[in-house]
Amino acid sequence: MRKTLLLLLSLCLVHLLHAEDGYNLWLRYKRIDNNNLLLTSYRKTITAIQIKGHSPTMEAVRKELELGLNGLLDTHIPTKDTTTNTLIAGTREALNLEDKPTGPEGFLIISKVINGKHYTIITANTETGVLYGAFHFLRLIQTHQPIENLHITSSPRVKLRLLNHWDNLNRYVERGYAGISIWNWHTLPDYIDDRYIDYARANASIGINGAVLNNVNANATILTGPYLQKVAALANILRPYGIKVYLSARFSAPMEIGHLKTADPLNDTVRQWWQAKAKEIYQLIPDFGGFLVKANSEGQPGPQNYGRTHADGANMLAEAVAPFGGIIIWRAFVYDPQANDRFKQAYNEFTPLDGKFRKNVLVQVKNGPIDFQPREPFSPLFGAMPQTPLMMEFQLTQEYLGQGTHLVYEAPLFKEVLDADTYAKGPNSTIAKVIDGSLYDHTLSGIAGVSNIGNERNWTGHLFGQANWYALGRLAWDHTLSSEQIATEWIGQTFSNDPAVVTSIKQIMLASREAVVNYMTPLGLHHIMGNGHHYGPAPWSNKAPRPDWDPIYYHKADAKGIGFDRTATGTNALQQYQPAVRQLYADSNTCSDQYLLWFHHVSWQHKMHSGRTLWNELCHKYQEGVDTVSAMQHKWEQLKGYIDPERFHQVQMLLAIQHKEAIWWRNVCLLYFQTFSGMPFPANYEQPDHTLEYYQQQHFPYAPGN
Amino acid sequence: MRKTLLLLLSLCLVHLLHAEDGYNLWLRYKRIDNNNLLLTSYRKTITAIQIKGHSPTMEAVRKELELGLNGLLDTHIPTKDTTTNTLIAGTREALNLEDKPTGPEGFLIISKVINGKHYTIITANTETGVLYGAFHFLRLIQTHQPIENLHITSSPRVKLRLLNHWDNLNRYVERGYAGISIWNWHTLPDYIDDRYIDYARANASIGINGAVLNNVNANATILTGPYLQKVAALANILRPYGIKVYLSARFSAPMEIGHLKTADPLNDTVRQWWQAKAKEIYQLIPDFGGFLVKANSEGQPGPQNYGRTHADGANMLAEAVAPFGGIIIWRAFVYDPQANDRFKQAYNEFTPLDGKFRKNVLVQVKNGPIDFQPREPFSPLFGAMPQTPLMMEFQLTQEYLGQGTHLVYEAPLFKEVLDADTYAKGPNSTIAKVIDGSLYDHTLSGIAGVSNIGNERNWTGHLFGQANWYALGRLAWDHTLSSEQIATEWIGQTFSNDPAVVTSIKQIMLASREAVVNYMTPLGLHHIMGNGHHYGPAPWSNKAPRPDWDPIYYHKADAKGIGFDRTATGTNALQQYQPAVRQLYADSNTCSDQYLLWFHHVSWQHKMHSGRTLWNELCHKYQEGVDTVSAMQHKWEQLKGYIDPERFHQVQMLLAIQHKEAIWWRNVCLLYFQTFSGMPFPANYEQPDHTLEYYQQQHFPYAPGN
Repeated sequence: MRKTLLLLLSLCLVHLLHAEDGYNLWLRYKRIDNNNLLLTSYRKTITAIQIKGHSPTMEAVRKELELGLNGLLDTHIPTKDTTTNTLIAGTREALNLEDKPTGPEGFLIISKVINGKHYTIITANTETGVLYGAFHFLRLIQTHQPIENLHITSSPRVKLRLLNHWDNLNRYVERGYAGISIWNWHTLPDYIDDRYIDYARANASIGINGAVLNNVNANATILTGPYLQKVAALANILRPYGIKVYLSARFSAPMEIGHLKTADPLNDTVRQWWQAKAKEIYQLIPDFGGFLVKANSEGQPGPQNYGRTHADGANMLAEAVAPFGGIIIWRAFVYDPQANDRFKQAYNEFTPLDGKFRKNVLVQVKNGPIDFQPREPFSPLFGAMPQTPLMMEFQLTQEYLGQGTHLVYEAPLFKEVLDADTYAKGPNSTIAKVIDGSLYDHTLSGIAGVSNIGNERNWTGHLFGQANWYALGRLAWDHTLSSEQIATEWIGQTFSNDPAVVTSIKQIMLASREAVVNYMTPLGLHHIMGNGHHYGPAPWSNKAPRPDWDPIYYHKADAKGIGFDRTATGTNALQQYQPAVRQLYADSNTCSDQYLLWFHHVSWQHKMHSGRTLWNELCHKYQEGVDTVSAMQHKWEQLKGYIDPERFHQVQMLLAIQHKEAIWWRNVCLLYFQTFSGMPFPANYEQPDHTLEYYQQQHFPYAPGN
Repeated sequence: MRKTLLLLLSLCLVHLLHAEDGYNLWLRYKRIDNNNLLLTSYRKTITAIQIKGHSPTMEAVRKELELGLNGLLDTHIPTKDTTTNTLIAGTREALNLEDKPTGPEGFLIISKVINGKHYTIITANTETGVLYGAFHFLRLIQTHQPIENLHITSSPRVKLRLLNHWDNLNRYVERGYAGISIWNWHTLPDYIDDRYIDYARANASIGINGAVLNNVNANATILTGPYLQKVAALANILRPYGIKVYLSARFSAPMEIGHLKTADPLNDTVRQWWQAKAKEIYQLIPDFGGFLVKANSEGQPGPQNYGRTHADGANMLAEAVAPFGGIIIWRAFVYDPQANDRFKQAYNEFTPLDGKFRKNVLVQVKNGPIDFQPREPFSPLFGAMPQTPLMMEFQLTQEYLGQGTHLVYEAPLFKEVLDADTYAKGPNSTIAKVIDGSLYDHTLSGIAGVSNIGNERNWTGHLFGQANWYALGRLAWDHTLSSEQIATEWIGQTFSNDPAVVTSIKQIMLASREAVVNYMTPLGLHHIMGNGHHYGPAPWSNKAPRPDWDPIYYHKADAKGIGFDRTATGTNALQQYQPAVRQLYADSNTCSDQYLLWFHHVSWQHKMHSGRTLWNELCHKYQEGVDTVSAMQHKWEQLKGYIDPERFHQVQMLLAIQHKEAIWWRNVCLLYFQTFSGMPFPANYEQPDHTLEYYQQQHFPYAPGN
């Protein structure tokens, strides 16, 4: 017996062979460690699983519960009827329950005693709801929550919870820092990569219910027959997980693949072409989500090419997909090189169109008026189009936030935006309420995240990029969750539930967003990175094909001072906000430091709230950013031995890069701005160890994602 | 006790969580299954490990033996001195042994009884040799060989055993079908991907001792300071595993990054530039391997731009690296659009230079005279440059062999070439003897494989691509191994040692190369694939920028017949072979079917050895290729349940693609050639189900690797 025991014990060693590579994301389902009491209690509560129903979605529920529970509880839980302590999952209809879950995607998890037998029941009005409930239940166990006496109801606050993939057909990912596209168009539809299924599982686990598969800088080829077959194959994989596929549509597709002479949205032949195309798509993919469109922006074709409006363009497509229940998501990211302030253009172009869009159109607005900067004031479009459902576009891929190598937890950025008050209908008209439809009573609502997913082993390149994907899903489901709650969940599932580990990692995560603001663009600076690849600082750049792609357009540093005057004495972009918002920013003496240089050109001597001059405050903030990264490194070092060596080392190396690059940003920006301020670096800060010329001579021709 | 047993038993379930993704290659180290007798015997023979020495290489030996033995024997084997049954690894010097291993890389594995104690000893003259021995020992166990009474000596027959990566600095891999480059130049040198280490382990396990990191279509930027730092970081990772790094050098680098006005190899400033560059490299990487050069080929710059010869170019570089022990590998892959037969050019350009290269130069020759076709006669250069060490260039990435989706085991192709007799010094002057240096008594010798590695989870895209990487390493070490032996080893380590499984998979592998010849280019057809991407058949193509990139240049089909007359009545390329070889091919009536259309333009009515007409034989061969793939599929289906479901399903899907594409090749080629032959398809074969026009209208703008 002793021999057998030893032999069996030895079996555990095989675990060692599996180096942590991050592939399993937050669905690792490792045995509950360091808490035998809890493990024992879980094992008592769940001794069997019963799945009601045999559809592909219920099959996904069964697989996931088996995989999750067998892994977490490290035992074999049979899928059969037992006397008691059974986990039952099924739709309300299948279970014949009285309890009512909410809505088409909501779920109910409830502990019940029936005839003296104990049950845990996961139910919903739809099978997808049951799947969401199953993932929620697994999350409870993954994060060491009690699973007795449960009564949990949950339903999403936002209807469309999407990832936008900026993935090209050759698998290049625009602004991708995690390898190439996971969509292998060449081998589709005949080869189904296991990753597609794991992608679906990960998204379903956080409630993401749609994926726009291709880049908004779209290629019409995706709409040709052979490619639609490939899209349909992906749709078949994603469908059981409650995920619809959407496509970015190139507005000129009728010309490029339909061989028409125009793409004018008011032209009958063009309209018929799109209607036929929609029909073709829906025959292959009956639940096709719809089209995302970037039009008349950065060189993309659009209705304005024919003297038509965005509404004309969107409505033509909306008309084509409406018979099939499809949706058009029309992007508001537009700006014209001729305009005097890129900030203002989306508002100027879109507010006059409010009320002119068909019912199945959403307008998708980036969180800020420029482009995914470390911090932006919210886009003035939020609250300014009451008759139009506005969809939020956040960016998970960290184009301007350190790309693939910086640890930046974005939930605080998302929350800052969602919690911002537009005052559109008086106080407490938050952006969250605009987006979830409640402010103006819209049925359609949506949040999209520009995906940070690629084919690297751990999906996101930086392990902590996974947290941003996770946070997007969780906030789209429930924007009242705090950044801290989401971090706690993610850390528990990804690393450990050891309170000391959770606390340390959470501190690192929660400090990281303000750090990147400080070491890149403090005090309201923005868009001062290198042209094209957007990697690293290049505030001197002034040679882009368009002035509004150049850093000097944004910081406007001169001998007098720095910053973009967007008040009445400048471009008056502020006018686009409600008076109560305007008031927050209008006076350079009362405007919060965070947004100062977004709205004001202020003197180098300007007295800041800290009592420092602007110049000294700038030095202070850049140094603060670097110091925060040092502190993050220090905290991470203390985790050595508490998490697996592979992931510990990966993050350690990346934090070292982040620290090096934070110093680079600080040095470059201060050296450059010093050429205008002419003021010395305060002696108590680290001094740059290279000259400005040194930095200006560096080039990065193969920086990724460009 | 029973409870504890059950609990422990349940631990095994965790295995289930690890889906087989192919990442571990042939180093899976899974517990010896289905053979308890063997497992018990292994456990008895090895109860402890002792490693003599503490260098990075000996640390690699320790890690690998621990990982391997703990995994395979599924027990914890202590690394300490025990009374008996200890595995000892160390250099001969460290162990103070009398037994003599051979050469700097050879090893000795020997079972010994000393003072009544049983030892297994792995030793070598160098630490790298010990590492090779450790991997060999693990392979014995992985393939269920006895490990008692061992006396194994082994040393490599070829000195340079290299992978050539055609990887660009932006991570695009030319002719890559497995994602993008594993070299993440952007995050190097600060981030060391775990893959780099696993790459080193995999290569060391099969004796590969060098890696050319970048594409032969080279970018001079790799030679700049910042990139050399990155190269040095990789060299540091690979060094403990006995792997040297090499770089592809762009011949015009002195102009592009050195800002000289010329790259003339006889110019003193140019020579000094390269000497300084070599010095700079060797200061960073003392064991840098050297340069690989593609010059005056397909638009690459070279010495001929200045009226100099290949020897002038190679010697200039050789002179620069010679003081540091470096090597120059100069490619013979040259052809001129003006020449009447691409076949002849390498021979014409290079044979006059024999004897003119410096001692540290090898000339690297592709196996055939054209370009990695499914079957080629051997390059006439082999045996024709007695004074120059010739290095073999095989292609692992299956550019012309079904790319990422066809199962084609290449060892039979490699062996066919290595075993071919050049008759250069009379009978039995095989290419293997040319390559290993024995025929002409060269000290330098080498074999290179153009890598099929990318960042996909399983490295090679197609799981069976791993077998080609494996085979290249094993054959470079010992070209006397048979394709079958290598397949047996690889299958045992990758899938199973169950004799039925091994037999089935081996049958599939061994049939696969002839299959691809038959369904793509039977009877000596060659180079009739789509232009540019080289994906799929396009025998009609006649619009390439150069005539010798067009299929019609190669098949020369017309109303009379088909094939390229390379006899005296044609281009007389045959003249480049020794008379005994020439004789094999010169007469269309005696020339073997395999090479018929390589050397002859023959009538559609030509009587083949089978008794069929050429046309009917062509139909027969294409059908035979398709049928073999059907048979491969059938055999694979029978393996269901015998191997893990993930990999079973992956290969199953790919075989279906291969079958579909084999039919595509057959249909396209026969329909097209029928337009010349005007003859019907024999009724007993499958008839094409589409028209030629249908196929001609298909386009593949995003086929990978182009």
